[in-house]
Amino acid sequence: MNWQVYLSGEIHTDWRDRIAQGTAAAGLDLRLTAPVTDHAASDAAGTAVLGEQERPFWNDHLGAGVNAIRTRTLIERADVVVVRFGEQYRQWNAAFDAGYAAALGKPLITLHPPEHDHALKEVDRAALAVAREPEQVVEILRYVLAA
Amino acid sequence: MNWQVYLSGEIHTDWRDRIAQGTAAAGLDLRLTAPVTDHAASDAAGTAVLGEQERPFWNDHLGAGVNAIRTRTLIERADVVVVRFGEQYRQWNAAFDAGYAAALGKPLITLHPPEHDHALKEVDRAALAVAREPEQVVEILRYVLAA
Amino acid sequence: MNWQVYLSGEIHTDWRDRIAQGTAAAGLDLRLTAPVTDHAASDAAGTAVLGEQERPFWNDHLGAGVNAIRTRTLIERADVVVVRFGEQYRQWNAAFDAGYAAALGKPLITLHPPEHDHALKEVDRAALAVAREPEQVVEILRYVLAA
Amino acid sequence: MNWQVYLSGEIHTDWRDRIAQGTAAAGLDLRLTAPVTDHAASDAAGTAVLGEQERPFWNDHLGAGVNAIRTRTLIERADVVVVRFGEQYRQWNAAFDAGYAAALGKPLITLHPPEHDHALKEVDRAALAVAREPEQVVEILRYVLAA
Amino acid sequence: MNWQVYLSGEIHTDWRDRIAQGTAAAGLDLRLTAPVTDHAASDAAGTAVLGEQERPFWNDHLGAGVNAIRTRTLIERADVVVVRFGEQYRQWNAAFDAGYAAALGKPLITLHPPEHDHALKEVDRAALAVAREPEQVVEILRYVLAA
Amino acid sequence: MNWQVYLSGEIHTDWRDRIAQGTAAAGLDLRLTAPVTDHAASDAAGTAVLGEQERPFWNDHLGAGVNAIRTRTLIERADVVVVRFGEQYRQWNAAFDAGYAAALGKPLITLHPPEHDHALKEVDRAALAVAREPEQVVEILRYVLAA
Amino acid sequence: MNWQVYLSGEIHTDWRDRIAQGTAAAGLDLRLTAPVTDHAASDAAGTAVLGEQERPFWNDHLGAGVNAIRTRTLIERADVVVVRFGEQYRQWNAAFDAGYAAALGKPLITLHPPEHDHALKEVDRAALAVAREPEQVVEILRYVLAA
Amino acid sequence: MNWQVYLSGEIHTDWRDRIAQGTAAAGLDLRLTAPVTDHAASDAAGTAVLGEQERPFWNDHLGAGVNAIRTRTLIERADVVVVRFGEQYRQWNAAFDAGYAAALGKPLITLHPPEHDHALKEVDRAALAVAREPEQVVEILRYVLAA
Repeated sequence: MNWQVYLSGEIHTDWRDRIAQGTAAAGLDLRLTAPVTDHAASDAAGTAVLGEQERPFWNDHLGAGVNAIRTRTLIERADVVVVRFGEQYRQWNAAFDAGYAAALGKPLITLHPPEHDHALKEVDRAALAVAREPEQVVEILRYVLAA
Repeated sequence: MNWQVYLSGEIHTDWRDRIAQGTAAAGLDLRLTAPVTDHAASDAAGTAVLGEQERPFWNDHLGAGVNAIRTRTLIERADVVVVRFGEQYRQWNAAFDAGYAAALGKPLITLHPPEHDHALKEVDRAALAVAREPEQVVEILRYVLAA
Repeated sequence: MNWQVYLSGEIHTDWRDRIAQGTAAAGLDLRLTAPVTDHAASDAAGTAVLGEQERPFWNDHLGAGVNAIRTRTLIERADVVVVRFGEQYRQWNAAFDAGYAAALGKPLITLHPPEHDHALKEVDRAALAVAREPEQVVEILRYVLAA
Repeated sequence: MNWQVYLSGEIHTDWRDRIAQGTAAAGLDLRLTAPVTDHAASDAAGTAVLGEQERPFWNDHLGAGVNAIRTRTLIERADVVVVRFGEQYRQWNAAFDAGYAAALGKPLITLHPPEHDHALKEVDRAALAVAREPEQVVEILRYVLAA
Repeated sequence: MNWQVYLSGEIHTDWRDRIAQGTAAAGLDLRLTAPVTDHAASDAAGTAVLGEQERPFWNDHLGAGVNAIRTRTLIERADVVVVRFGEQYRQWNAAFDAGYAAALGKPLITLHPPEHDHALKEVDRAALAVAREPEQVVEILRYVLAA
Repeated sequence: MNWQVYLSGEIHTDWRDRIAQGTAAAGLDLRLTAPVTDHAASDAAGTAVLGEQERPFWNDHLGAGVNAIRTRTLIERADVVVVRFGEQYRQWNAAFDAGYAAALGKPLITLHPPEHDHALKEVDRAALAVAREPEQVVEILRYVLAA
Repeated sequence: MNWQVYLSGEIHTDWRDRIAQGTAAAGLDLRLTAPVTDHAASDAAGTAVLGEQERPFWNDHLGAGVNAIRTRTLIERADVVVVRFGEQYRQWNAAFDAGYAAALGKPLITLHPPEHDHALKEVDRAALAVAREPEQVVEILRYVLAA
Repeated sequence: MNWQVYLSGEIHTDWRDRIAQGTAAAGLDLRLTAPVTDHAASDAAGTAVLGEQERPFWNDHLGAGVNAIRTRTLIERADVVVVRFGEQYRQWNAAFDAGYAAALGKPLITLHPPEHDHALKEVDRAALAVAREPEQVVEILRYVLAA
């Protein structure tokens, strides 16, 4: 059916690979997209091209601007947005992406362990499915894309 | 000018009161709105009316649904959305609101201490101002609403 | 807060009155709107003005057109849409209104007895709350509209 | 012309096959899409992946969420939405889809026997054609897609 | 209910007055709006302020621009758009307004004698009611605005 | 550049052919679309499939519904809409299409002889070009699509 | 009629006052809005509240952010946007506002001397009227707002 | 990833070529689009086809109309809009395009020397990146389009 699925959020575990392998093994007709997941490259996305600023705040600002060119476009193109929250870090950009996708009316799947359930209740309420493991996301996509 | 300003995020400090007092003292023609900030009432928003479920996940789901009736409507009515991130907790709902507001094209002001700058860089990039103290938000609103 | 709440669906029981009395007793700042609930008047909405046709199909078509002038406008103006499914009749127009409201992004509350749960699962999934009694709708609105 | 036509509603008769055969025989350049029409698979869409819950209500809720990922996306992609109402069952999801499609401005064709005319008058009023037999839908598509 | 009704089209008969008198007599809570109906003033709307041009085409262009400031704004504000086609003239601007209103999803009522039925079939198909006399429009508005 | 150009309006002269030949000769990468231009087939679009009604009004209504499935979809897909007004007939559907396209923000080109200038001034004001001959439309498209 | 008119652009002459006086003298029911026109205050809108940065670029960035909270909201609220280009300065923000308003579908009036005609041809083409003097804007508003 | 990037603004230097060469050398999967950059052809876009008018104003008006058919369509199709401001000329159309793109929510990159920073602060504030050299735009696109 040729769907595009955006994988937002945590970049420290192999969840994107597991979804990629699972959907490839299932022969699904979809394209997985994502932010730049190389942490150092992502942090330097602005300064590497536009130059270092005096304050870290503006360095971050430059980087976030360049990354947003990619992420907003890919979210708007996506048919489904999957947002992963991991065990660590604040991951506010993941929640921001979820809110952004929700306001655009994109079908949302969240992926996180149960210990975050209470803290993520507003995000999960906006989702059409809450998964615990990447393989569950694969199963959902397999079902959704069935001929 | 009769603006509506939605105050999203952290509910454990007096930042909303400080903005209310400051804007009242300045005589600004605006209405401040917010989620229900009584933590216990907010958590029970679903179960108190619709009944306890077997799993905490569904209790949260009920509560988040009822709260969303309020928060989404107020965000859509808002002329400006202020999102506050405090020192504690994960506050994913604040980041979700910021993403939701950004996708709707609402002017966004974030309010948080500098130690969250790096973690909030994507949210801040979508904002038109990043404030550190509630009084700065008052000043911005005073300027913005000048006759 | 001055909200508008559209009450769609079943017209044979007193559920609208119970919501009106409950919200009035609670002193809520809202306006309740509804389709024309006089069944005979509603069925004759087209033919009484535009004339009888040879076929019942076109009589219905005329009536549904005139009623839609009212219902679509009120749904678009509504901050919240409540849709009631009763014990009898097919009530496809109620489900149609629910779908219409959902596509517009309106917060949706459904109201129906548990025996319809399975048949209404798609409609309920699009709702932010599923109530069983009109008084629960009143409670939700009381919470949502709290100062 | 490469159109996409979504076939919503009743899943117990062969109407989708008859449309598929008719449009194939006519050599029309279109793609027919539909919800998952395997009733058991559709009902289990949530629980099979995300686990059984204590209450049937939440099992339905999980399933409806997963199905909505598919159905909303396909309705939004569709150039034309056909909604079929059969002799049996309440079929509220069909009417919900019709309302959803109507609010998105999708051209709508309904397909149902005359005995449902009065009950479906609001849905039919939102449609650009009301057909009785799948072959009439084929004829309409043949005309609409003529070079 | 405080509705706004835009009365587009023919400016040579008293149909707007008849609707104004009828709705006033019925005590309806609505506001009637319209283009400038003084034909000479309307034709001179551009040139009177911005000056005569060498070609009638540009005179018309100036006038149509100034008139569009009024008409587009009023159509977008309207809850209902009534479009009247009279016995004479080409009245393309009336049909243009009808198409404009239809694309915005405004409920449309057309008003014209039966001899124009075939020529107006596309316009009428987009309308929710086709009236023959201004008093029928009054009756429809009375029904639609019933408490 | 792969544009789609919708050719609306008058069906009695060869203007569509002249645009087709001119753009083909120029090797432009565009697709021309149009309503069904076989007058008899278009008038019978509804009744041929859905049956004759007692009144001509409803026959027209059926036909206009089926034709609208095609025309609205093609207008929404179009990058440019050309609307032709000929010497004869009332052509209200052409003006309706122009209004519909204008409200959608589609670039509009009108094509008509100067004697209609005053009557078409509102339509022309919404257009980005007013042409007199089909060959001028070809020239405009050639310029617009230049690499 | 209660319209809101946003006056964008040049801040060095008395054109806003002349429009204010003219529309007040004419007794028009409208509200004039504008950016903050105190040049020094506008330039310091960011730094006065949020602090001086190392680079002028970021000082401007802060100021432009705070000003945008006001200007975007007022443009979105406006029924008509008037954009004035004066004799001096580059006034790119005026052209930016014009483009922003045009994309939102706001009726646009430009106001500038003839020597800028060629340089402003794209902006003027998006406008519904091009005036030379503030009094002409007053005349247009008087006409547009006529009862 | 198959993106479309619209290059708006200054037409007197080789900046478009440098971006074209850089992105081609990097093997990026994108399509660069632009207005017609042949100055004489662009100025004559209207008059060459539609005829000379008595006043330069209307000649410009005709040309700007024809050019807008191209530019608005390409901006709406673009995933990213780059706007270049050069050393000379007023370039109001570039700022207009930037405002238009911003209101559509298009990711915006501006390209200009530092001496324009203050005058372009509102435009730059709406951009996600401010570049000084075409090669920086290439670098940003390379990053954004990374697999």
